[in-house]
Amino acid sequence: MIRSFVDVPADSHFPIQNLPYGVFSPHGGGDPRVGVRIGDWVLDLAEIADAGLFTGPYLIAADGVFAQPSLNAFMSLGRQAWQEAREMVQRLLNADSAALQGNEALRQRALWRIDNVEMQVPAAVGDYTDFYSSREHASNVGSLFRDPDNPLLPNWLHLPVAYHGRASSIVPSGQGVRRPFGQRGPEKGGAPHFGPTEKLDFELEVGAFVGPGNRLGERVPVEEAERHIFGLVLVNDWSARDIQAWEYRPLGPFLGKSFATTVSPWVVPLAALEPFRVDGPPQSPEPLPYLRHEEPCAFDIHLEVRLQGEGMAGPATITRTNLRHLYWRLCQQVAHHTVNGCNLRPGDLLASGTVSGSEPGSYGSLLELSRNGERPLTLPGGETRTFLEDGDTVTLSGWCQGDGYRVGFGELTGRVLPAHP
Amino acid sequence: MIRSFVDVPADSHFPIQNLPYGVFSPHGGGDPRVGVRIGDWVLDLAEIADAGLFTGPYLIAADGVFAQPSLNAFMSLGRQAWQEAREMVQRLLNADSAALQGNEALRQRALWRIDNVEMQVPAAVGDYTDFYSSREHASNVGSLFRDPDNPLLPNWLHLPVAYHGRASSIVPSGQGVRRPFGQRGPEKGGAPHFGPTEKLDFELEVGAFVGPGNRLGERVPVEEAERHIFGLVLVNDWSARDIQAWEYRPLGPFLGKSFATTVSPWVVPLAALEPFRVDGPPQSPEPLPYLRHEEPCAFDIHLEVRLQGEGMAGPATITRTNLRHLYWRLCQQVAHHTVNGCNLRPGDLLASGTVSGSEPGSYGSLLELSRNGERPLTLPGGETRTFLEDGDTVTLSGWCQGDGYRVGFGELTGRVLPAHP
Repeated sequence: MIRSFVDVPADSHFPIQNLPYGVFSPHGGGDPRVGVRIGDWVLDLAEIADAGLFTGPYLIAADGVFAQPSLNAFMSLGRQAWQEAREMVQRLLNADSAALQGNEALRQRALWRIDNVEMQVPAAVGDYTDFYSSREHASNVGSLFRDPDNPLLPNWLHLPVAYHGRASSIVPSGQGVRRPFGQRGPEKGGAPHFGPTEKLDFELEVGAFVGPGNRLGERVPVEEAERHIFGLVLVNDWSARDIQAWEYRPLGPFLGKSFATTVSPWVVPLAALEPFRVDGPPQSPEPLPYLRHEEPCAFDIHLEVRLQGEGMAGPATITRTNLRHLYWRLCQQVAHHTVNGCNLRPGDLLASGTVSGSEPGSYGSLLELSRNGERPLTLPGGETRTFLEDGDTVTLSGWCQGDGYRVGFGELTGRVLPAHP
Repeated sequence: MIRSFVDVPADSHFPIQNLPYGVFSPHGGGDPRVGVRIGDWVLDLAEIADAGLFTGPYLIAADGVFAQPSLNAFMSLGRQAWQEAREMVQRLLNADSAALQGNEALRQRALWRIDNVEMQVPAAVGDYTDFYSSREHASNVGSLFRDPDNPLLPNWLHLPVAYHGRASSIVPSGQGVRRPFGQRGPEKGGAPHFGPTEKLDFELEVGAFVGPGNRLGERVPVEEAERHIFGLVLVNDWSARDIQAWEYRPLGPFLGKSFATTVSPWVVPLAALEPFRVDGPPQSPEPLPYLRHEEPCAFDIHLEVRLQGEGMAGPATITRTNLRHLYWRLCQQVAHHTVNGCNLRPGDLLASGTVSGSEPGSYGSLLELSRNGERPLTLPGGETRTFLEDGDTVTLSGWCQGDGYRVGFGELTGRVLPAHP
């Protein structure tokens, strides 16, 4: 197994097998730029490029691509450039290589302790699409709000349902999330209520950043779909269930979700996820031809949600699930999204929708975990939760378990701030 | 009445009372830049700025704001800068002023015939929001697809329903629109169909471009809403009704609309629309306090749609209506959009939703005009239409009728291209 000369703790999400990309700003000042995470360190790719260490043809032609406040330019280059960069970074960080290890001046300039940098949203997101691809989640929601005997709507098994989300309110991990105001439906007739949401929720999702994308009017065939995906992040699609329930008919969620969506800072490239590629669940009825694929196109990614109230001694894990259960796979989402000629652009974000397993302890939202508030969760120390309270910190985590190492996403956190007075 | 030294035809939409902004590229080459339309001419504001004629403090501080491929930077400056620019341009173009009229060299550089330039989408749209604010349209749709006796859903009279649209596929007027492929629901049980849409439609809308916008977590009060609106354009929100009908539950329209949205090139500033400000229709029940406003906040804008098939000698006007009928006003849309703290950014587009009047000849979509295909329209020459056919050209037009002049939007056109083989 390859090892880095940089010391990587045994339980780290960021060994040399991972090498995810992010955008960071040094605490001491300096422009945001692109880095790669290794253990508790960040390798500054703008410095590495300045030092002339990217010697392959794709990155020489794309000078300046890492001295940018977003990954969009690098994402747009496509798979061969990504591969070139990944191989070079893996070589530089390898314990057997002296190019960086033996150059103390360069190490001083190019390696930042993670504590000394601030992470940004990794891409400027043009369009943010949120799918609804977990059968278990869609069934739970359909059962709560429509018909427990027929929880899935007729279209659900034929296409990956999705809606357009709000791009402007995508925020980085760690940023507080203000409890939003909004309208709630009247109890029976009468006027709607107005005030801070009483049903603030998280949604455990995994997001994919688009690479080159397609031109308007052209479609991406399902077998080519992954060439357009740069990598994955965790996503918390914060939701106000009472606002959403009142507003969503007939055009879908709007203010119930547009107040904040948090993404994790490190984009794990698809290349790092290759060893964890698996078949997804069986699909019946068989999808239409444009959605059929031969190669496995699901990923075995453990996912967890932890919740810590202000008075709690530590976080409690309230959900454990796995992305491999997702009914509609990423390659199908891309093929469906573009089948009408809709263009995807570099940096666009495609989120999975809430990922839920089949057991209560594996549901990806409080809506499901508490059955819309009917069954409060009991947390360690005796506190209970139906929905989120002010001061609660929600942490998402995800990783792939290799043989003696993990390829992970790190953590995505967000704390609930009280509504404005 | 003030007049320009530039000759303006009597029926022009672009007299000196209008002065809309757009982004143009000279046919002969040259970077896209910001211009103002006057009659059949475009005044190049980058040249005017280079010549040192913007002498006010806001535009001196915003050097380079017109030498840009979008209006976003100018939009972000806010109302006082917009007013400064408008007054200066109005002065330069005034028949009584010599600064431009008397400077032949500058006129040669700064005035372009409209035939010699290509117009672009005027802003880089970060997020595109589509409202559903015409009561007549929502009632027609609800009557066709749900319940003719209760066409409006319970939330409709309490809030301006909206959804997030697709920003990437916003295209300029004149660009062809490819008939999209997609899934249609099965007739009864069975598998869905796949193929080119058989119900391609237009939607007559008016869009507003956001100016400065608000920070995440802050709201824009209804009485301050218009300070955040730069100006208006026409919007054709192309729709595939069969794709939309199958996919839209429960998360709203997606591929049925994301293949193309056309915007008109000239952004008419709110200042030019002031003389045409009117009260909107009465609202009952009274909206919640955050949506109540004292000042009139609707606009008297005539709207038309013309349709020309390939075999037709000329276009036929198939719809005449007026924006003043819109139930939810722009100021209410902005207040609602931000009440949860959602941030609007410069260049964001807020579209009205389909504008329909109360008579069949005033409906803003073929869905309504043909009652979902049940009652074909007969066009001059005997052709009929239920939905759009390949080769059809759809033209939207809109103007305000002043005393002896019009303040207009010009035309928005788009031709239907056949589906890819």
